[in-house]
Amino acid sequence: MNKSIFTLLIVFTFFSCSTAQKVTAPKPTNKTVVKNVMISALEWQESHPIFAISPTDWTAGAYYTGVARAHKATKDMMYLAALKNMGYWNNWQTYKRMHHADDVAISYSYLYLNKNGGRKNFVDLEPTKKFIDTHLYENDNWKAGTDKSKEGKTILWWWCDALFMAPPVINLYAKQTNQPKYLDDMHKFYMQTYKQLYDKEERLFARDMRFVWKGTDTDRKEPNGKKIFWSRGNGWVLGGLALLLEDMPKDYEHYSFYENLFKEMASRILELQPKSGLWHTSLLNPETYNHGEVSGSGFYTFALAWGVNNGLLDKAVYAPAVKKAWNALVACQHEDGRVGWVQNIGAFPEPATADSWQNFGTGAFLMAGSEILKLKE
Amino acid sequence: MNKSIFTLLIVFTFFSCSTAQKVTAPKPTNKTVVKNVMISALEWQESHPIFAISPTDWTAGAYYTGVARAHKATKDMMYLAALKNMGYWNNWQTYKRMHHADDVAISYSYLYLNKNGGRKNFVDLEPTKKFIDTHLYENDNWKAGTDKSKEGKTILWWWCDALFMAPPVINLYAKQTNQPKYLDDMHKFYMQTYKQLYDKEERLFARDMRFVWKGTDTDRKEPNGKKIFWSRGNGWVLGGLALLLEDMPKDYEHYSFYENLFKEMASRILELQPKSGLWHTSLLNPETYNHGEVSGSGFYTFALAWGVNNGLLDKAVYAPAVKKAWNALVACQHEDGRVGWVQNIGAFPEPATADSWQNFGTGAFLMAGSEILKLKE
Amino acid sequence: MNKSIFTLLIVFTFFSCSTAQKVTAPKPTNKTVVKNVMISALEWQESHPIFAISPTDWTAGAYYTGVARAHKATKDMMYLAALKNMGYWNNWQTYKRMHHADDVAISYSYLYLNKNGGRKNFVDLEPTKKFIDTHLYENDNWKAGTDKSKEGKTILWWWCDALFMAPPVINLYAKQTNQPKYLDDMHKFYMQTYKQLYDKEERLFARDMRFVWKGTDTDRKEPNGKKIFWSRGNGWVLGGLALLLEDMPKDYEHYSFYENLFKEMASRILELQPKSGLWHTSLLNPETYNHGEVSGSGFYTFALAWGVNNGLLDKAVYAPAVKKAWNALVACQHEDGRVGWVQNIGAFPEPATADSWQNFGTGAFLMAGSEILKLKE
Repeated sequence: MNKSIFTLLIVFTFFSCSTAQKVTAPKPTNKTVVKNVMISALEWQESHPIFAISPTDWTAGAYYTGVARAHKATKDMMYLAALKNMGYWNNWQTYKRMHHADDVAISYSYLYLNKNGGRKNFVDLEPTKKFIDTHLYENDNWKAGTDKSKEGKTILWWWCDALFMAPPVINLYAKQTNQPKYLDDMHKFYMQTYKQLYDKEERLFARDMRFVWKGTDTDRKEPNGKKIFWSRGNGWVLGGLALLLEDMPKDYEHYSFYENLFKEMASRILELQPKSGLWHTSLLNPETYNHGEVSGSGFYTFALAWGVNNGLLDKAVYAPAVKKAWNALVACQHEDGRVGWVQNIGAFPEPATADSWQNFGTGAFLMAGSEILKLKE
Repeated sequence: MNKSIFTLLIVFTFFSCSTAQKVTAPKPTNKTVVKNVMISALEWQESHPIFAISPTDWTAGAYYTGVARAHKATKDMMYLAALKNMGYWNNWQTYKRMHHADDVAISYSYLYLNKNGGRKNFVDLEPTKKFIDTHLYENDNWKAGTDKSKEGKTILWWWCDALFMAPPVINLYAKQTNQPKYLDDMHKFYMQTYKQLYDKEERLFARDMRFVWKGTDTDRKEPNGKKIFWSRGNGWVLGGLALLLEDMPKDYEHYSFYENLFKEMASRILELQPKSGLWHTSLLNPETYNHGEVSGSGFYTFALAWGVNNGLLDKAVYAPAVKKAWNALVACQHEDGRVGWVQNIGAFPEPATADSWQNFGTGAFLMAGSEILKLKE
Repeated sequence: MNKSIFTLLIVFTFFSCSTAQKVTAPKPTNKTVVKNVMISALEWQESHPIFAISPTDWTAGAYYTGVARAHKATKDMMYLAALKNMGYWNNWQTYKRMHHADDVAISYSYLYLNKNGGRKNFVDLEPTKKFIDTHLYENDNWKAGTDKSKEGKTILWWWCDALFMAPPVINLYAKQTNQPKYLDDMHKFYMQTYKQLYDKEERLFARDMRFVWKGTDTDRKEPNGKKIFWSRGNGWVLGGLALLLEDMPKDYEHYSFYENLFKEMASRILELQPKSGLWHTSLLNPETYNHGEVSGSGFYTFALAWGVNNGLLDKAVYAPAVKKAWNALVACQHEDGRVGWVQNIGAFPEPATADSWQNFGTGAFLMAGSEILKLKE
């Protein structure tokens, strides 16, 4: 029981001494502090590997996208080492369902490493290429509309999370290989999802067709009668848009579509930010689970900060919200580095706890931190 | 030397402050404390991987059985993540000696995950099936009695440890696949071992034939003239019996044999518990190595607590012994989570130290904790 | 921000209490302290895996040579567990460039384990054998002198680092397999490098032909006009010589060549030791980067201490220098175990920082510690 005694001692010491002198911690947005909490999150996550189906699945995809962004922002080789280890032991494979957007999310990291890993021919992009080609150019029962599930699996990317998983990867692949055709095909499928799930009035995405109102009695509603919009689900979309815009040619014919969608959603997310700084899992009925949640909030913080840093969002308006969110995110991190308050794997609003964690939550935290580092005071 | 100075500082602070106010730690059997020390043990062990021959060997088998039991008791996904990682990277393989009980111990975790991993078709049970079928239904030189080693390798399970390694796995496989024939074959080999190694007078198992007295001058004796009964060896048997009984149909024709054996051994183990709470490595000559040992004691604590929790053992009699043992086990854990005082790999009583550790010792610790959590006050 | 507050608290407590009572830390050369800082370095490094190209590359080779030496000196099974894990998951492979000395450095650990791993047939030495045979007995464009790079790649081991990477492995392989012919071939290539890169006047090795003066205006010079001798480069050679001498038969006909070279370089390294204890990255122009560097200094500390411990160097002269160096090395270790002040991968003097780390730096640290443990007071 040494640990408990140790903790008690520290607490005791704190209270017995703290009256004598005030201790002022540096602000969470202090660059050194940001770097420290990010590294601490990485170290904890690397020593607590987790996956849903495989180390190449979307949970790893989202986490290592955060690691890649953290490396891009800091150049700290601890992130690079983590990425290289992951890619090496995964043998640069995607996961295996070639029409499931989730299974190519991991390739964002492979593509990042390919350009920033410092070694030629280290990354094998063949599995990524094969996935993308099959994904875009071969048929399956989702694309064919023959799947009759209630989720509305009649398009390739039938759930909003998919807009984080595949489009940024295809976009980056198009850029690295200088093949604009991939961008066009990406756009075609993106528009299908946009038309099916985007609620223009609410400026938010429904997670899938189960949550799109048909005006009947069976429409799913929150206890307060409003539509169900999932925080992480919209975090996937908004975070994915920031990733997309960064690598999309500014003269691409549909660039303004993505830019406008990004700004439109961003303004809505800003309106919906709770006073505490973190978005709850249900955006329109925050009372359902009355606490901030880290994965969705991390993606929002990343996206809004990216928008400020890249001149798409008004700094005077958005920077205070971003800082408030970051402060609140940091407060969700445990002393040992674990990022808590992460909703577990799911498809709609569910609660989190101080202890609940997932690698993609850590990824969202790292993505947020990577843009906080670039905020100019 | 920051660390040493840090430690000295803490110690110094402690002594300089502790006169002013008393610090009372919560009891080690407090449920939150139990969960914390268990997680701390897991985290340390996961970051200190070790094996004897392979990550699929019996040391991992025993350790991950503890992890599985800990998950069953707590549902903490940190255990689940560890189990899934292990199975994935081991590609669901057993180790390779198809007639060596040790090499299928790992399959207890695979079978657990198969039912409790939350994903269909995630676990590949083919290697386990192949092992069990070969193990039970194909001949080898142990079964054939043609091995002439002094250990008495004339039966399949010629050493008592084997009764932890294979029978609970076969039993659980029979249950999950609904094939009672496996149970019958398990029983046949169990009885061979029971007849060869169980000492009805002492109510303990000899480790192997080297330790069974023949009434000659060459009989191995402890310094005090008594028979050599190994703590961990009997821990394997008693712990294995608890695992067996849990998944064995209560109406199985030989259920009462296992129930009686469990109760008989449990009562003997209770009699032999030293005042300090932990059993020494030599059960009948505790002075040989005059300290408690964690792996054997962990299995006993698990088994006795399981017996209380499942109504096989009298709570009034056993619960105090179990709590005393658990308190002493927790005192063997280092501040960083390492479970010390574990006898290294062996086959008879040998000493341990505060620093000596092994993954199977951590497994025994987790098994014990998992049943302590279920003890009703 | 718990962590920062925690740290601040500790610092605060320290200053508020330290006036009351003096805390005296044990000396860094205290055996228990040495073992503790070594284990702490290992634990940090194992939880921060890193490689340049592959987990079998030279960075791992140097690191695990340190782990092997640490195990040899302490018998602590934490080192053995790390070695076995590494070898198992690397499937006992070398890296793949069969004429690149770097790619067989990892085999030092395999050979060590083969003799000291406690399991017969656990290590597969076939890949090592195949590498050595190809390396020594098949031609390539370096050996053939057809590579026209400015580095002078006209011999097998055309850069001084190579003398750490391959010769000790070949030497140990010759010893373990009792095939002296390998020693003769090693010697042949060693002499080529010695003739090409050893500066008899300075008693130091140039890194490669780019740093060997031709007496022309294009000769590379330090700002102070002196030749460029790289600390880690000479650390590779001197450290490699200690490894070589340990396993080379004392009656080998060229033993005295290696012994004399070792002594000659050792005396020069001693002369060049800065007052602070650690060598800077540029040996003859320490002002270039005005701080000690750990990887080179670690190899020197190892080699000089080994020389004292094995009677090749005068204890009265060298032991104080060695202790000073060790004290300074330990001061470069962070509280969490990370060994800082390590120059990153390179080929000539470049700076390091308190935070810069690499697995081979940790390896050098462990090698140093392993001989400090054997120093008699």
